Amino acid sequence: MDYQAVLEEVAAFARPYVGHGQVADYIPALEKVPTDRFGIAVADINGEVYGVGDWEVPFSVQSISKTFSLALVMANDNEDIWKRVGREPSGTPFNSLVQLEWENGVPRNPFINAGALVVTDRLQTLTGDASTTMLHFLREESGNPDLAFDQAVADSEAEHGDRNAALAHFMASFGNLENPVPSVIEHYFWQCSIEMSCRDLAAAGGFLARHGLRADGSRLLEAREAKRINAVMLTCGTYDAAGEFAYRVGLPAKSGVGGGIVAVVPGRCTLCVWSPGLDSRGNSVAGAAALDHFTSLTGWSVF
Amino acid sequence: MDYQAVLEEVAAFARPYVGHGQVADYIPALEKVPTDRFGIAVADINGEVYGVGDWEVPFSVQSISKTFSLALVMANDNEDIWKRVGREPSGTPFNSLVQLEWENGVPRNPFINAGALVVTDRLQTLTGDASTTMLHFLREESGNPDLAFDQAVADSEAEHGDRNAALAHFMASFGNLENPVPSVIEHYFWQCSIEMSCRDLAAAGGFLARHGLRADGSRLLEAREAKRINAVMLTCGTYDAAGEFAYRVGLPAKSGVGGGIVAVVPGRCTLCVWSPGLDSRGNSVAGAAALDHFTSLTGWSVF
Amino acid sequence: MDYQAVLEEVAAFARPYVGHGQVADYIPALEKVPTDRFGIAVADINGEVYGVGDWEVPFSVQSISKTFSLALVMANDNEDIWKRVGREPSGTPFNSLVQLEWENGVPRNPFINAGALVVTDRLQTLTGDASTTMLHFLREESGNPDLAFDQAVADSEAEHGDRNAALAHFMASFGNLENPVPSVIEHYFWQCSIEMSCRDLAAAGGFLARHGLRADGSRLLEAREAKRINAVMLTCGTYDAAGEFAYRVGLPAKSGVGGGIVAVVPGRCTLCVWSPGLDSRGNSVAGAAALDHFTSLTGWSVF
Amino acid sequence: MDYQAVLEEVAAFARPYVGHGQVADYIPALEKVPTDRFGIAVADINGEVYGVGDWEVPFSVQSISKTFSLALVMANDNEDIWKRVGREPSGTPFNSLVQLEWENGVPRNPFINAGALVVTDRLQTLTGDASTTMLHFLREESGNPDLAFDQAVADSEAEHGDRNAALAHFMASFGNLENPVPSVIEHYFWQCSIEMSCRDLAAAGGFLARHGLRADGSRLLEAREAKRINAVMLTCGTYDAAGEFAYRVGLPAKSGVGGGIVAVVPGRCTLCVWSPGLDSRGNSVAGAAALDHFTSLTGWSVF
Repeated sequence: MDYQAVLEEVAAFARPYVGHGQVADYIPALEKVPTDRFGIAVADINGEVYGVGDWEVPFSVQSISKTFSLALVMANDNEDIWKRVGREPSGTPFNSLVQLEWENGVPRNPFINAGALVVTDRLQTLTGDASTTMLHFLREESGNPDLAFDQAVADSEAEHGDRNAALAHFMASFGNLENPVPSVIEHYFWQCSIEMSCRDLAAAGGFLARHGLRADGSRLLEAREAKRINAVMLTCGTYDAAGEFAYRVGLPAKSGVGGGIVAVVPGRCTLCVWSPGLDSRGNSVAGAAALDHFTSLTGWSVF
Repeated sequence: MDYQAVLEEVAAFARPYVGHGQVADYIPALEKVPTDRFGIAVADINGEVYGVGDWEVPFSVQSISKTFSLALVMANDNEDIWKRVGREPSGTPFNSLVQLEWENGVPRNPFINAGALVVTDRLQTLTGDASTTMLHFLREESGNPDLAFDQAVADSEAEHGDRNAALAHFMASFGNLENPVPSVIEHYFWQCSIEMSCRDLAAAGGFLARHGLRADGSRLLEAREAKRINAVMLTCGTYDAAGEFAYRVGLPAKSGVGGGIVAVVPGRCTLCVWSPGLDSRGNSVAGAAALDHFTSLTGWSVF
Repeated sequence: MDYQAVLEEVAAFARPYVGHGQVADYIPALEKVPTDRFGIAVADINGEVYGVGDWEVPFSVQSISKTFSLALVMANDNEDIWKRVGREPSGTPFNSLVQLEWENGVPRNPFINAGALVVTDRLQTLTGDASTTMLHFLREESGNPDLAFDQAVADSEAEHGDRNAALAHFMASFGNLENPVPSVIEHYFWQCSIEMSCRDLAAAGGFLARHGLRADGSRLLEAREAKRINAVMLTCGTYDAAGEFAYRVGLPAKSGVGGGIVAVVPGRCTLCVWSPGLDSRGNSVAGAAALDHFTSLTGWSVF
Repeated sequence: MDYQAVLEEVAAFARPYVGHGQVADYIPALEKVPTDRFGIAVADINGEVYGVGDWEVPFSVQSISKTFSLALVMANDNEDIWKRVGREPSGTPFNSLVQLEWENGVPRNPFINAGALVVTDRLQTLTGDASTTMLHFLREESGNPDLAFDQAVADSEAEHGDRNAALAHFMASFGNLENPVPSVIEHYFWQCSIEMSCRDLAAAGGFLARHGLRADGSRLLEAREAKRINAVMLTCGTYDAAGEFAYRVGLPAKSGVGGGIVAVVPGRCTLCVWSPGLDSRGNSVAGAAALDHFTSLTGWSVF
């Protein structure tokens, strides 16, 4: 596969969609991102990375971090995180409290905010410093030692974080948090604030295409665990549009409101696309178009 | 009306119910109350107080405080608290988040926890110290200068307060709190922790029977405002059992999980009954039986 | 009490509200009612009826019939209807299916549509002909032998009756109906379609003020049963506005989307007011204003 | 691929699971099926069918019919069925009314009962006889002219069909049905009652593996339409266990409470497995185990 040629064709196809949609505006720090950006990168399973456009420009990973915190918990845990968080699509907007009340404080899956808070809580218990653990992991896998938290973004999230605080306290009232709420919230926001480029993310997500093997060939996850994460990405990775995304793209994917989307072709490669304009469900408009065209060109869709 | 004779007959009637039900056990500080206690007091509109049984033993007022915080806000506010809290029965258990999400952070009424948090928040804005304001008011109206917070209860509430914290953060996310969540929560718990006897509470609630006049004859509330509080007490004052309570007792009433119930006969008197055993909806078993018999004897039920 | 003078003053007060609000338009048969109508009648406990305005003009009783079907079931039943329907306010719009699902097919109270369907079902089991039984009862109590169903209204309801059919089938799926759904629905619609005037309804509701005694002095209900119906009227009788109505009017009342409201002053009289313009919750605008003024003038409010 | 050898290994693997779980007992006609049955069949894209065990024994297709009614509507419709039914996982048990109320009568996807009723309604409008149209289609695609409705099953469904009737009336109240409720319900039950074997279903579902081509090579669906159905099967095809099923099996699949599951390997083959014992979410225990092992052996899982 000539990845470079494919990416160029994909970028040309996606170009008209760039600038469409709305930039996330729930925190001031994200509002300022220019809407005309577009980048895409592919990391093959040997670690070669290809890219076009703004593929080396850092952006806020936001919910894409949920994939990595889940992987790190699954890699380190002797207990079963799946007793504390489900694996089924949520069926309601991504931060609803209703479902949480119905299901006694057990979030539906690790990619809604409530579920990611539980995963972060567990990572905190396992490591003593959930956000730093993730940062170090991402630096190693991406090969980029300069990765860092964006303090302005983390502070801005915290200032507007009442809904996440409500989710955390609510789960705590059901006994589904091990650490104090303020600590869990803080690490959650730090994780979301990490800045990475398409290049960094495609490389860092390589273990999902390599059935659990890290960049250095050591094993992070069992093959069945990597498969599990991919399955959750396909059914739950794109907020309330997972069904539509499964159809259009047909690949496991996780999106963030920073405009990034990481997608996986198991056994072949990991992609990351970025463009800040979001559709009504919080997924990058041009990013989704690009991934859609990528699977059309390569025939690598699931269906 | 020979109140003393009526109260003695009521106490005799209620005696077999004393000890039935469960003492509130969600915080350790309440668990320790002996279940065999029963007291009842009546304050007529001239301020005479009559009582039998443990009518001078202090207990934790808990949710009964919601009545006084509402009255103090209505007495001091130029704005309309009713834009921030509804006046309709809630129809679901008293601390549900579902309804709050449906109704954009506006609690159904001031007597569910979410509504009381909004009222406390407003009282804090108006006075700068919501809980001390209430304590001073209760001392004056009861004529008992020894009333005090119970620090052990307040601390215990705070330790087990995740659900209230979730409610507060959730409302804050809708912009329905004016003060920081920790401050609102703290004052709310202090208010609930106040210790008062049946005597104290019957006297302190006298303004509800006097159409808004305080113990010293000065006006706390307009008559229509006192009527409003009584109406909310009748339809919302006894958690998820307001319909049943309206039928059995037929008087405006507010209960607390400490086992107390304050009831009002507008134009005549204010009652307070106490017995710690609670039914499945959080209302005192012997207390409800006593009020039921009181209205049977006096014919003062609404219906 | 000079009822005639009071009613005239009430009518003068309510006049400016006549024509405000919307006529019920969910079925064509109700849409055609002229909005400028207003009538009010009072029946004292001796059966004397007073009235002003359009107090002898028949209108569609609609949900007011729910009061009579409940009374007829309570008068005839050896079993306990309260196992199949609750007595608490609903807290959500009057025809919601959500609450029904949460509570396993047991409606919250007999005055929401679901609850009235259960009551009608029981009346059908007890009498073999629920709607005719009610019609005969209303003829006898009102002293008006000409009362009749309005076939056009009943047909129109049936044509637009999918939501009620959904409620009935849903409850049947929980085993909470004894008769076939089409039969229950049919009798329910016939009951709603009965045409009565303010005079007829005030007279027919006299048993509620007489603690259960019928017009001829025989006993329909025990006093505690009449009290029960009044309590349910106060807390649940005016759709999602019961709390507000309790405050403004302070009397047990049941409204219908035909624009009528029946209210009870226990031990004194039964009122009926009619004006077709409805507020957003389905209660007559001018009717509520009239009852509000009636209790102000007489001082007969509960609070 | 030596399908016969693979199926034999799969059957041996699944054998210990046969008899586990519960036979569907909500209608008497399904309760009688012996629990020790197990069959599996594969139809390759050339129409060759392989099978082992009870692969030629007919069983009740139940919800598997939802896949075919959706395909037939998509094949015949000029309008857009997706305006009347969504494509996202439901997140709540398969027959919940709550979500339907929240989303104004538009079911979340075509594989929950509400969604299938809308699809059947549309097929009825398009063809004048939804159930016979499907039966003829299934006879042609399976090459089995003896396929028939099971009248006892259809009658039994109708007798216990109150929840489906509630769903249909509820959607009708939102204007989301074109035909009378009784007609839609009847055709829906007839479709579910069709008896087919694993052989029949694997052959009849061949168009899903052939990107929309029928058994005779003519085109039923565009390739993108077949892809759409596969995507909906993967994310919504196994009731409330779609996320778990995606992980374990990793193939588009549709299950029925008769114990059958149809799964698709796009471009390669269609499978059908049958064993009547169901897990708590309504999917065949031994059937899921068999498909799990099939993808392990062939490496044809999506992830």
